Amino acid sequence: MKLHRLAFCLSLMGAYIAVAATTEPIQPIVAVRVEKPNLVELGKKLFFDPRLSKSGVISCNSCHNLSMGGSDNLTSSVGHLWKEGPINSPTVLNSSLSLAQFWDGRAKDLQAQAGGPIDNPGEMASTHRLAVEVLQSIPGYVAEFNAVFCEDRITIDEVTLAIAAFEKTLSTPNSRFDQWLMGNKKAISTEELAGYALFKSSACVACHDGPAAGGKSYQKMGLVTPYVTSNTAQGRVGVTHDEADRFKFKVPTLRNVELTYPYFHDGAAATLKDAVNTMGRIQLGKTFSDTESGQILAFLKTLTGEQPSFKLPLLPPSSDNTPRPQPFARK
Amino acid sequence: MKLHRLAFCLSLMGAYIAVAATTEPIQPIVAVRVEKPNLVELGKKLFFDPRLSKSGVISCNSCHNLSMGGSDNLTSSVGHLWKEGPINSPTVLNSSLSLAQFWDGRAKDLQAQAGGPIDNPGEMASTHRLAVEVLQSIPGYVAEFNAVFCEDRITIDEVTLAIAAFEKTLSTPNSRFDQWLMGNKKAISTEELAGYALFKSSACVACHDGPAAGGKSYQKMGLVTPYVTSNTAQGRVGVTHDEADRFKFKVPTLRNVELTYPYFHDGAAATLKDAVNTMGRIQLGKTFSDTESGQILAFLKTLTGEQPSFKLPLLPPSSDNTPRPQPFARK
Repeated sequence: MKLHRLAFCLSLMGAYIAVAATTEPIQPIVAVRVEKPNLVELGKKLFFDPRLSKSGVISCNSCHNLSMGGSDNLTSSVGHLWKEGPINSPTVLNSSLSLAQFWDGRAKDLQAQAGGPIDNPGEMASTHRLAVEVLQSIPGYVAEFNAVFCEDRITIDEVTLAIAAFEKTLSTPNSRFDQWLMGNKKAISTEELAGYALFKSSACVACHDGPAAGGKSYQKMGLVTPYVTSNTAQGRVGVTHDEADRFKFKVPTLRNVELTYPYFHDGAAATLKDAVNTMGRIQLGKTFSDTESGQILAFLKTLTGEQPSFKLPLLPPSSDNTPRPQPFARK
Repeated sequence: MKLHRLAFCLSLMGAYIAVAATTEPIQPIVAVRVEKPNLVELGKKLFFDPRLSKSGVISCNSCHNLSMGGSDNLTSSVGHLWKEGPINSPTVLNSSLSLAQFWDGRAKDLQAQAGGPIDNPGEMASTHRLAVEVLQSIPGYVAEFNAVFCEDRITIDEVTLAIAAFEKTLSTPNSRFDQWLMGNKKAISTEELAGYALFKSSACVACHDGPAAGGKSYQKMGLVTPYVTSNTAQGRVGVTHDEADRFKFKVPTLRNVELTYPYFHDGAAATLKDAVNTMGRIQLGKTFSDTESGQILAFLKTLTGEQPSFKLPLLPPSSDNTPRPQPFARK
């Protein structure tokens, strides 16, 4: 009876699937079971829909491309009117495991994040009002929102809730490292294991721990040696207004790090080797030998998990009443 | 024995599936069977890969979005550095049925077309040499090209051949109109059938015929009444240098026309109703009543077929040697 109740309670949670106990500082990624498939399907369409931008060109997937590790692989992103973004776009993969969203954590969760780029003049450059007006004019969306939310009027909160629900499904379980954590000792090589040992003994795991191997704290960029960059982002201080938080950024996840180049909030590290060596120097005061950084690189590449796999969504067509995209309007 | 040989021969062709004989001017779309799945899979990745552009932002799918009827639903497309394209991007769906590619037919086939945008400074703004250099630096692509073409060196001809092979699979069979053509008389309504009758009796079918309901000839835009536009495209004359071809454009397919707004080479018709009424006026010298244009609209919407359905491709990651995208380089 108690077991039945436990099973019932677990079924209400977002994450489950029995995970072998492990005392390692990095924990396996737990596959997410989709609780509300209609909500997730709606969110998937919205994630791919460029009509949420003023231009009709930029979708969530433009900067968080699910063909490319949930990132755009650019130093900084291209926004409305080709404006250069101020910071590197982080991967959307496993982002629900982060303590908050954006590099400075200014959005408390994925839903709060999803509304940001839509009305940012340098990104999608729409407004929440226009985005909702566009969706409300598309019969296919009206029917889907109605089926999911049981309301005739679409709201921006429903839009961002659906996008967040889709994003929560974007986990990448079953990496070779996770297979090793779960007990398959043949899943990683001797070199990769040596890299993991070095990753731990060098204290990388002090920040890059947990299921996401990161995402759980804010840390100063340049803890031991100042980090020199032309990027003007000041980090967490913009949210807390506490000088102690100047130049603190959310520790990025290392899951799928092989796919999410270039690295750091300024995208200045073009290669993973650059990133490892710079981290060693500025955060840990260490200079890794080529052998050492090679081992750490080998380990990091075992963190590439199964990528989200789904059919390209088909978007419902605009109606005659849909406000038309304005890619070349300059005001 | 003969039947066996016939079946064998048919299996070597690109298109088959028994099609009921019909004397109608519009013929059913024939589903394409994939002959070389590895080539098509490679082409699909390339079609979605923004690394074929200088910026790392623009892929084939940017302007021929397979979530949106194979078009971008813009009057004209957004190119490198947000440059405004000179002409409306036609749908890639069923494009293999066209007599040639581009509005002026300057590319003889899909392979010839595929190379155009890659090195067009106003579109993807790369060069064929750089595009190949990028692909050659990506181990995942090298392995795939090698498996498909049995050669170590990637060539631009292989790139465009693969993209074209994928594009050839982008047919949209089994529309309601095709079901009707194939004998299911309940597949379309009385109003839709009246629209088709009017479409024929008004001579729309003179140009919009065959399986694609278009794509088989060049016609002057403004045959009866001059077409007024601020767009400077001159059409087929640019290819033939024959004054008689000035302002002649390839007749677009009407397949999936419900999804491929806005219409005409200049994208000036925002709605399908605008397009139908303008076509009546400038090509046929007719003014359709609201009832008539409503019937034609209803018929045209029966031409929406089954959209290509496939998993979002996962792209192989760049290597440390891959030339990095240059979205903000101004030269």
